[in-house]
Amino acid sequence: MSTNLKFYSNLMSQPGRSLYIVMKLAKIPFESITIALREGEHATESFAKEINALKTIPCINDGGFKLAESIAILRYLATKSSLIVRWYPGGARTRARVDEYLEWHHLNVRGTLANYFSEAWLQPLLTKQAAKPEKLAVLRAKMIKSLDVLENLWLRNGDFIANNEVSVADIWAICEIEQLALANFDVTEGRPGIKAWMERVRKACNPFYDEAHEILWKTCHKYGQKTPKL
Amino acid sequence: MSTNLKFYSNLMSQPGRSLYIVMKLAKIPFESITIALREGEHATESFAKEINALKTIPCINDGGFKLAESIAILRYLATKSSLIVRWYPGGARTRARVDEYLEWHHLNVRGTLANYFSEAWLQPLLTKQAAKPEKLAVLRAKMIKSLDVLENLWLRNGDFIANNEVSVADIWAICEIEQLALANFDVTEGRPGIKAWMERVRKACNPFYDEAHEILWKTCHKYGQKTPKL
Repeated sequence: MSTNLKFYSNLMSQPGRSLYIVMKLAKIPFESITIALREGEHATESFAKEINALKTIPCINDGGFKLAESIAILRYLATKSSLIVRWYPGGARTRARVDEYLEWHHLNVRGTLANYFSEAWLQPLLTKQAAKPEKLAVLRAKMIKSLDVLENLWLRNGDFIANNEVSVADIWAICEIEQLALANFDVTEGRPGIKAWMERVRKACNPFYDEAHEILWKTCHKYGQKTPKL
Repeated sequence: MSTNLKFYSNLMSQPGRSLYIVMKLAKIPFESITIALREGEHATESFAKEINALKTIPCINDGGFKLAESIAILRYLATKSSLIVRWYPGGARTRARVDEYLEWHHLNVRGTLANYFSEAWLQPLLTKQAAKPEKLAVLRAKMIKSLDVLENLWLRNGDFIANNEVSVADIWAICEIEQLALANFDVTEGRPGIKAWMERVRKACNPFYDEAHEILWKTCHKYGQKTPKL
């Protein structure tokens, strides 16, 4: 594939999927390089030296310019491709609404959901030790608080998180939420707003939504978790 | 004061100070409205209804347009005032370097430092109960990990976090770091890079740096903590 944009990622990474979906939707050409997360390839010294000193994915190399942090990459790509504007709007106030969510996202959705996922599913898998119920309960409560704010506040006024239009705010949020299926946590139970919103976002982003989530959903099947979407 | 930009904040808030400093540096006119954090004014239903549904500060109201999340507000103001470009550069790659830090900031610097501060100082003050040593040790370890990445990675190549120029990346980072003085934690011990960087950032941002931190440093004095800067 002839392109100067190298994309280092893995579809088991939530922000990796978000960036993949939006690059596909905006028709940005890129060379995809899968990093073996399970084997800890991202945590090696050679990865740090050659690819990303922060030892995280996703990250890019755009003709020699290395950049980490999915949302920073999104903003950078938006300066290069006008097609992203459909997903990351350009007007001062409409963009600010999307940005407001993207900032809130880190400590509320990304932080709490990924922490719960890690404690409930990933760590037990890696260490062969069951999660501590008290610790899990604390993380679960924090996650539920954020999900309820998503249901009752961000989605209260319209079909999508910002400006009543689908945007990267929805995409970054939903990729964290989809991950919870693997930890056997049903986000939609008691949250009809999130349930309907998830269907709308999936529809707006397909076929790339399903393409990005196929490996996650297959992994759910492998571990016996419910995945109505596959 | 005649201006359409209302700024709801409190100088005891770290992101509140960051935004205050950059607005002063960029000569953006605003009307400052202090929210009584200690009395929980930000958490009331009237605050949620009238000012910010997320119940957080800082937030703004710009001629009827309400916005929360300090970094989203910064970006929004950057679309309105060209003077911010000195602190939040406009070129695709130079801005991406600042954005890369601002994204990393949330879960690493903001999250870990504010969590430690809350557990070590704020909660004991509010509840009159001493912090649990085990919980504090876990939070302290996470905070130290982030501070070491700041010392050894972000500051390894130059005088400032991004592009070897002072920027909002430095300002958002340093306001979280200054807060730790109140929890009696000396960030600069064993971290000469952070120590020298803090002096550079303070100098670049004065007189507004000292103006923004005066209340914090006075509070340190009140509680008998070391504050060499006052």
